Amino acid sequence: MDTEKMGAAAKSAARILGVAGTDIKNKALEAMAAALESRTGQIISANAADLDNGRQNGMKDSLLDRLRLTPERIAGMADGIRQVAALADPIGEIIEGSVRPNGMKIQRVRVPLGVVGIIFEARPNVTSDAAALCLKSGNACILRGGKEAINSNMAIADILREAVASQGLPADCIQLVSDTSRESANQMMRMNGYLDVLIPRGGAGLIKAVVSNSTVPVIETGVGNCHVYVDRTADIRMAADIIFNAKTSRPSVCNAIETILVHRDIAQEALPVIKARLDEKNVEIRGCQRTAEILGDCVVPASDEDYATEFLDYILACRVVDSLDQAIEHIAKYSTGHSECIVTSDYASAEKFTSSVDSAAVYVNCSTRFTDGGEFGLGAEIGISTQKLHARGPMGIRQLTSSKFIIQGNGQIR
Amino acid sequence: MDTEKMGAAAKSAARILGVAGTDIKNKALEAMAAALESRTGQIISANAADLDNGRQNGMKDSLLDRLRLTPERIAGMADGIRQVAALADPIGEIIEGSVRPNGMKIQRVRVPLGVVGIIFEARPNVTSDAAALCLKSGNACILRGGKEAINSNMAIADILREAVASQGLPADCIQLVSDTSRESANQMMRMNGYLDVLIPRGGAGLIKAVVSNSTVPVIETGVGNCHVYVDRTADIRMAADIIFNAKTSRPSVCNAIETILVHRDIAQEALPVIKARLDEKNVEIRGCQRTAEILGDCVVPASDEDYATEFLDYILACRVVDSLDQAIEHIAKYSTGHSECIVTSDYASAEKFTSSVDSAAVYVNCSTRFTDGGEFGLGAEIGISTQKLHARGPMGIRQLTSSKFIIQGNGQIR
Repeated sequence: MDTEKMGAAAKSAARILGVAGTDIKNKALEAMAAALESRTGQIISANAADLDNGRQNGMKDSLLDRLRLTPERIAGMADGIRQVAALADPIGEIIEGSVRPNGMKIQRVRVPLGVVGIIFEARPNVTSDAAALCLKSGNACILRGGKEAINSNMAIADILREAVASQGLPADCIQLVSDTSRESANQMMRMNGYLDVLIPRGGAGLIKAVVSNSTVPVIETGVGNCHVYVDRTADIRMAADIIFNAKTSRPSVCNAIETILVHRDIAQEALPVIKARLDEKNVEIRGCQRTAEILGDCVVPASDEDYATEFLDYILACRVVDSLDQAIEHIAKYSTGHSECIVTSDYASAEKFTSSVDSAAVYVNCSTRFTDGGEFGLGAEIGISTQKLHARGPMGIRQLTSSKFIIQGNGQIR
Repeated sequence: MDTEKMGAAAKSAARILGVAGTDIKNKALEAMAAALESRTGQIISANAADLDNGRQNGMKDSLLDRLRLTPERIAGMADGIRQVAALADPIGEIIEGSVRPNGMKIQRVRVPLGVVGIIFEARPNVTSDAAALCLKSGNACILRGGKEAINSNMAIADILREAVASQGLPADCIQLVSDTSRESANQMMRMNGYLDVLIPRGGAGLIKAVVSNSTVPVIETGVGNCHVYVDRTADIRMAADIIFNAKTSRPSVCNAIETILVHRDIAQEALPVIKARLDEKNVEIRGCQRTAEILGDCVVPASDEDYATEFLDYILACRVVDSLDQAIEHIAKYSTGHSECIVTSDYASAEKFTSSVDSAAVYVNCSTRFTDGGEFGLGAEIGISTQKLHARGPMGIRQLTSSKFIIQGNGQIR
């Protein structure tokens, strides 16, 4: 990978894209969507090569399915781009402004970040999603997908680049790294001076590698060891419904829960009701001693390791706690800072939980599955930040921006 | 340096400080200010040891002066803390909120970052400034100053810690690293999981070392290779006044200018006027060929290196440019993204310069010396960010915060 060359091309494209008007950006997005649809055959051929390689390498069926593109999925990608085109353009927004005593007018205006790097894993639709969000927010992007999807990603990126160029914007607004070796990922993590931010999208291993090796500013996304705490005063039926939804509606995603904490005063009554719901989907419960005493032999003994694990599966850890404080302590110790929920009918408990739990999204009486840009009304998301710097929680196009101060005077000196 | 121990202590202190009310934080700040004043003698003794060491090691007079603490300077530090106490508390602010179609109420509220690390150089007043800004914004801090000021910093930190504890907050809200070896700085750059952000304050060498080695999120501050561009239509007298102020009012600071760019159509008339002002302070001019043709032998030939240098001295690079576009190109190539100014009377030039120049602060017709938290009306600053992620430009206490989503429902599931 020639980082100097790609970096310089991206910076140069970003300078043009950064001051491009909303109209031309939207036209480029429309052209990108149309090109994906009109060249579906080309994408599907490339994808077939990836699927062949996957089968030969013994890829699991569930991963093959994630990798597979169909005309419907490609149409979905095109629709996703059109939805991004329909979002309000954040660039140029005047965030705040004031007039200083000496008459200088100060405005803070929203500007693009510049060049966004994204390292992602198998799903090829990320190529078009990420490219569209970056383009709308005025950022050039350098995308590096996994080797499993390289043929699909190359085809998609080529088509998108041509579409962007057809509307008079630089093709290098979108660049895909063709080298999928580990070395190319490491090189991206050192592209200081070219990349303004690096966003890893994928599993915990990828994210950890990027966070601990990158000297480019990183936005950490997505790992979700999420909790529901059932307070002493909870409506048990509501608690069971929320737990069932948050665990089983889509266990493989980051906003699904992995552990429930149940107040000891309600555990005897609540745990059987919760378990009955979870049994509908054969959820395995890994519980503490007190959980086992209430629910019996079906409970697998939970280890510290279990409390720290993002199962992403039909497995749920369970601990009976002595108090709200102990629940908050448990979350502080094990949570990845993504999403946590309290089920309670007590005002003070709700207040204490929401102020003391330090996660991106803290819920009272609703499912953690709502942590999502679309569900929050922010539009399509580029990821869910679990760090505190720059952006926290679902990141839409606004979170792909920075700001600058513009100061207008008439000769003021200090 | 025991990073585990300091990190764990900071995290634990941050959890208490993060939910502490404004009153108790302000009382702690008042106690900090009062303690610095009442124990001035102790600080001055410690500082005398640092000054002795400095003299023995041949420290320059200007650096000895930066290091020196006097009763007046200590009173100034106390005043600085009181000013921070007087700032509005940013924590708890509801930044935005909405009600979703399913009835969930979503609020985004301002919260502390958590634990802030600061690596700084010789000036011991940074210890109290940084501690006060972090405390007010609800963040625990781990401070690592330079070895030159270690005795002063230890005395100040001890006094501040006692004052904080006297008001019932954990002393570990403020920790100073006593080990001033290079290794301790490197260790801080790897304190992922403990530090939410690391801010280097000091010279270009320190900042570069931190940016290129830290895996903790960094906010890059302070290096300022700033420019004034004198447009074809500039008021020459205004241009000369702004250049004189921006270069000579305090050459050692980051918002002072280092290069002027002068449009060729006005250079013949403007350069002698500008030079006459700069002569009052014996500013050395390093110019391009055309500058030398106009101003004569006094001009030292400028190299590419000169255009890339933050002189922090009575030296100014000068280049005659063919157009506004060439000025913008020059700035894109050499600027550190801090502060740039155009002097013009043309509407379109002002518009193009402010939209195309990608720096934290872009000025029309006033001095770059205004890039400062106080001057912008933001209150005391912890530094001036020259990066685009999280914060850009002067960083006050608001820039030491993050946000979280609080979602209130009544049983919603997805």
